[in-house]
Amino acid sequence: MSSRKEVAELAGVSEATVSRVLNGVGPMKEETRRKVLAAAEQLGYVPSAIARQFARRKSGNIGVILPFVPKVHLFSTYYFSEILSGIGEAAKRLGYDLLLIFRDEGLDYAQLFRMRKIDACIVLGSQSTEEERNSLAELAREKYPFCLVNQRFDEEGYLSVDADHKTGSYEAVRHLIENGCKQIAFINGPELYTNSLDRFEGYKKALAEAGLELSPELLFTGNYSSRSGYAAAAAIAERYKQGEVDAVFTANDRMGIGLMNGLRACGIETGKQIAIIGYDDSDGSRIVHPQLSTVAVPFYEMGQRAAELLLNESIVQPQSEVLPVRLVKRASSLF
Amino acid sequence: MSSRKEVAELAGVSEATVSRVLNGVGPMKEETRRKVLAAAEQLGYVPSAIARQFARRKSGNIGVILPFVPKVHLFSTYYFSEILSGIGEAAKRLGYDLLLIFRDEGLDYAQLFRMRKIDACIVLGSQSTEEERNSLAELAREKYPFCLVNQRFDEEGYLSVDADHKTGSYEAVRHLIENGCKQIAFINGPELYTNSLDRFEGYKKALAEAGLELSPELLFTGNYSSRSGYAAAAAIAERYKQGEVDAVFTANDRMGIGLMNGLRACGIETGKQIAIIGYDDSDGSRIVHPQLSTVAVPFYEMGQRAAELLLNESIVQPQSEVLPVRLVKRASSLF
Repeated sequence: MSSRKEVAELAGVSEATVSRVLNGVGPMKEETRRKVLAAAEQLGYVPSAIARQFARRKSGNIGVILPFVPKVHLFSTYYFSEILSGIGEAAKRLGYDLLLIFRDEGLDYAQLFRMRKIDACIVLGSQSTEEERNSLAELAREKYPFCLVNQRFDEEGYLSVDADHKTGSYEAVRHLIENGCKQIAFINGPELYTNSLDRFEGYKKALAEAGLELSPELLFTGNYSSRSGYAAAAAIAERYKQGEVDAVFTANDRMGIGLMNGLRACGIETGKQIAIIGYDDSDGSRIVHPQLSTVAVPFYEMGQRAAELLLNESIVQPQSEVLPVRLVKRASSLF
Repeated sequence: MSSRKEVAELAGVSEATVSRVLNGVGPMKEETRRKVLAAAEQLGYVPSAIARQFARRKSGNIGVILPFVPKVHLFSTYYFSEILSGIGEAAKRLGYDLLLIFRDEGLDYAQLFRMRKIDACIVLGSQSTEEERNSLAELAREKYPFCLVNQRFDEEGYLSVDADHKTGSYEAVRHLIENGCKQIAFINGPELYTNSLDRFEGYKKALAEAGLELSPELLFTGNYSSRSGYAAAAAIAERYKQGEVDAVFTANDRMGIGLMNGLRACGIETGKQIAIIGYDDSDGSRIVHPQLSTVAVPFYEMGQRAAELLLNESIVQPQSEVLPVRLVKRASSLF
C-alpha cells in the first residue's frame, strides 16, 4: 500500500495537506482537495480505518490549555515558547490547527470536547489542585484524549510527557558536591507541581549519597519567577556570611538568575564566592555573567511528543514518556 | 447602566468570564454561569445589541494565521512571540480562545469562517503574493472581519495595525549620518512586505535630506534571517576595505547581528571601524557585544490592538492604526 508521503509527492503538496483533505477537516481550496483525492485514488492509498473513524466528527483542532499570568509575555518565556513550538510543529505536520485556551475560573475542559472545539487536548502548567484534579478526572471518565506535559498524576495514570527531573537534579547537586561544596541550599518551586517534587527527590538523593545532612533551614520555596530568586538572596547572603552555605541549586534558571543578581547586591560574587546551578538551559542562562550552570530540558521535543501521542494514528497504544535531561557545566558553579 | 466590570466584581469572576458567559461561547461550568447571570440580572446589565447579535453564531475563537518555517522555533522568535503575547492578552481579556493556523498551500481563509472555526482573524507574516491577495480579497468580499499586522495592502484598504517603519528607518539612518557616516549600506528584507518598502522610503529620505547620493551597489536584500545578514558580510567587508562604506542599516536585528558576526570574521570590528544599526529592539540586540543600536517596535501592543479592533464591542468603527517606533542608540553605531 502506498504511503501518505507518496500521495503528497504525487499531488505536489505537503503531508499535512494530505491529512487535512483525507480527514475532511479542511479548510481547503477545492482545487487542492481534488489534486489530493486524485493522487490518493491513483496510488490506491487508503487511510487507516481508525483514522477515518476518528475523522468522522472532527474539529481538526488540538487544544492546548495554558496558564495566564497577567503582565507576563507568555510566548516570550523560554519554557512555554519551546513547548508550544514543538506542539505546533507536530500539529502542522499531522494536519491540525492549534487552539490555545487560557485557564480561567469555571473553565470546563470536557465541554471543550462536547462543543467540538477540540479533538484532543494538551494540558500545560497543570497543578495538583482539587479543581484541576476534578477537571482531568472528568476528561478521563468521558474518555476524551488528553496529555499532560511536565506534570504527572501518578495514581490516576494519565497520559503524560515528562522529563527526568529527578536524575537532572541529582546530577546538578552531585556536580556541586564534586566541586567541593558541602552546604548546598535549594530554592525549589511550589509542591503543586510534580516536577518540583522530583527535583527535591534528586536533591535528597545526591546529599544522602555523599553523606551530607539535609538542613531544613537551607530549603527555600520560590514560584519559578526571577523575582522569587532575588527575594531569597538576603537570607542566603546572611547564611553565607556565617559560613553556613557554599552553593545553591535553583529549580529553574530564572530563579537562579534572580538569586545571582540579589547576591551581587549583597556583595557576593557567584562563581567566585558561591556556586549556583540553575535548571532549564534557557537563553538567559547563556547570557548572564558568569554564565549559569544548568540542566538542559528538551522542552521542544516534549511538546512534539505530546502532540504525536495524541494525534499520530500510527501510535497504537500511547504510553507516558519521560525524556532525558543533560547537565551543563558553566562558570557559575566552577571555582 | 452597569458595566461588565461591575458584573465581574459582584459575581467574583474575571471580566473575561463575564464575556464568555454572556456571549454564550463557553465552555463554562454551570455554577459559574449561574453566578454571572445572577449578577448581571441583579445589576440590570444588558450587553449591547451588537454584541448579542454578533454572539448568535459564534465559535468563540479568534484565528491567527501564521507562517510556518521548518526548523525555526516560531514562538521563540522575538517578533512572533511578542505579537502573539499581545493578541493572547487581549483575546483572554475579551473572552476568546486563540486558534493558530499555519499557512499551507491550499489553505482557504474564508472557509475557516464558513466552517465556524473562527469569528475573526488576524493575519501575520502576510506577503504581497497573488495567492495571498486572492485569499484576503475573498475575506473582504464576504465581509468576514480580519486584520493584518505589520503589513498593509494600501489600495484595498484592509484593516491593519502597523508600525511607523518609514519614520523609524529615517531616524536610524539620520542617526548614522549625524555620527559622521556618509556611505551607508542597507540590507533590506524582501519587497513582498510593505514594511520592507517603508524602510526603503525612510532610508532614501534621510540620504536625500543630507544631500547624500543613493548608491545602488550599497543596497542588499536578505530574508530577515541572521544567516542572510552574515552572507552579506563578505561583499560589505570588501567595500569597507576600498573605503566605499562606513555604516550599515539592517532592516531587522537578526540580520544586523549576522552581519556583525560576519564582519568580525573578516577582521572588521563593529562600533570601532564600522557602524551598524538594526531594527526591532529584540532581546538579542541587548545581548551582543557591542550592543546593537536599533529601533524599538511595539510588537506586543500591535498584537493587542489588532485583537481589540476585531473583538472589542466598544470600538464602533475600527480603523487602521500605525503605532510609533523609537530610536535606541547603543555602542554598535557610536564611534
